Amino acid sequence: MPHIALNSGEPGIRGLLRYRSETGRILSELAEVLLRGPSTLSRGERELIAAYVSALNDCRYCSSSHSACAAAQLPGGMALVEQVRADPGSAPVSAKIKALLRIASAVRDSGHAVTAGHVVKARAVGATDREIHDAVLIAATFCMLNRYVDGLATTAPEDPATYTAGAQRLVMHGYVGSSAAPGHES
Amino acid sequence: MPHIALNSGEPGIRGLLRYRSETGRILSELAEVLLRGPSTLSRGERELIAAYVSALNDCRYCSSSHSACAAAQLPGGMALVEQVRADPGSAPVSAKIKALLRIASAVRDSGHAVTAGHVVKARAVGATDREIHDAVLIAATFCMLNRYVDGLATTAPEDPATYTAGAQRLVMHGYVGSSAAPGHES
Repeated sequence: MPHIALNSGEPGIRGLLRYRSETGRILSELAEVLLRGPSTLSRGERELIAAYVSALNDCRYCSSSHSACAAAQLPGGMALVEQVRADPGSAPVSAKIKALLRIASAVRDSGHAVTAGHVVKARAVGATDREIHDAVLIAATFCMLNRYVDGLATTAPEDPATYTAGAQRLVMHGYVGSSAAPGHES
Repeated sequence: MPHIALNSGEPGIRGLLRYRSETGRILSELAEVLLRGPSTLSRGERELIAAYVSALNDCRYCSSSHSACAAAQLPGGMALVEQVRADPGSAPVSAKIKALLRIASAVRDSGHAVTAGHVVKARAVGATDREIHDAVLIAATFCMLNRYVDGLATTAPEDPATYTAGAQRLVMHGYVGSSAAPGHES
């Protein structure tokens, strides 16, 4: 049960976006720009970073939602997402994505954990400054969203199909709109 | 030296907001709503939560900026801010603010670290659901901003007067505007 009385029965971030619509609109825009806006990283790759960080933070709602969004937009589907979550170093993703996931994992620990060595390695396998920037900001954003969702003890559906259905809507309509929101899943 | 080549010499979050203006605008709006928008918590109290979390995360730029903003808007000034940063439990702030700072500290550790007990105690000393919500979201937001600022190794001015001058401008003009931004200090 959530720590505070929300004004809907919606789970996860959705209930919070509705409870405080002024910040909800802003957080939805942030997700839209970072995860779906123009970028040399694909939408699936960006959702993979979001899912990976959310899993490291043990945020069930966000990791389930963004794993489903990544799976829906990556050729490897959920099997690939699960490999990345288990061990990104051995997963069949590009060296660039592996390097960005290493940076994201460091950001999750602390901003100070990102070293010049991480950045040099990412550049050596083709990451641009903008891609490094966005990987850091996506990871940092999910360190916020995961804390928001779990810090208020919001609920998370157990049925994986719920997240799959939500991902289909998000892929179609995005995070900003009449019925879509970060982690939208029903 | 920052990990990536920014398009200005601006320190801390300011250089990042300028580098990626689309996310910069959104992050500035988030700071404006959370720290200065309508609330039963004063602007100084909200800046105090931001400064406290940023200090726990050892983010020099954000803790200096928001300590200066809190000091400029609280009767106790910087002496009070320093007492809170050193030991909120013994600092001369209300029981409600102490309880919200305890929640913010838990959020900083992890969303899962916020317990029903923290929330019950906050309510017992007068915190509303909306205040508890905002304390969680402010703390979570600074867990993002601190990671963004330090994850890209942005610079932080050493002279405290720089942050004091920036806080005066922020108190006057806010986080959204032609020359103001979160942590704006020169």
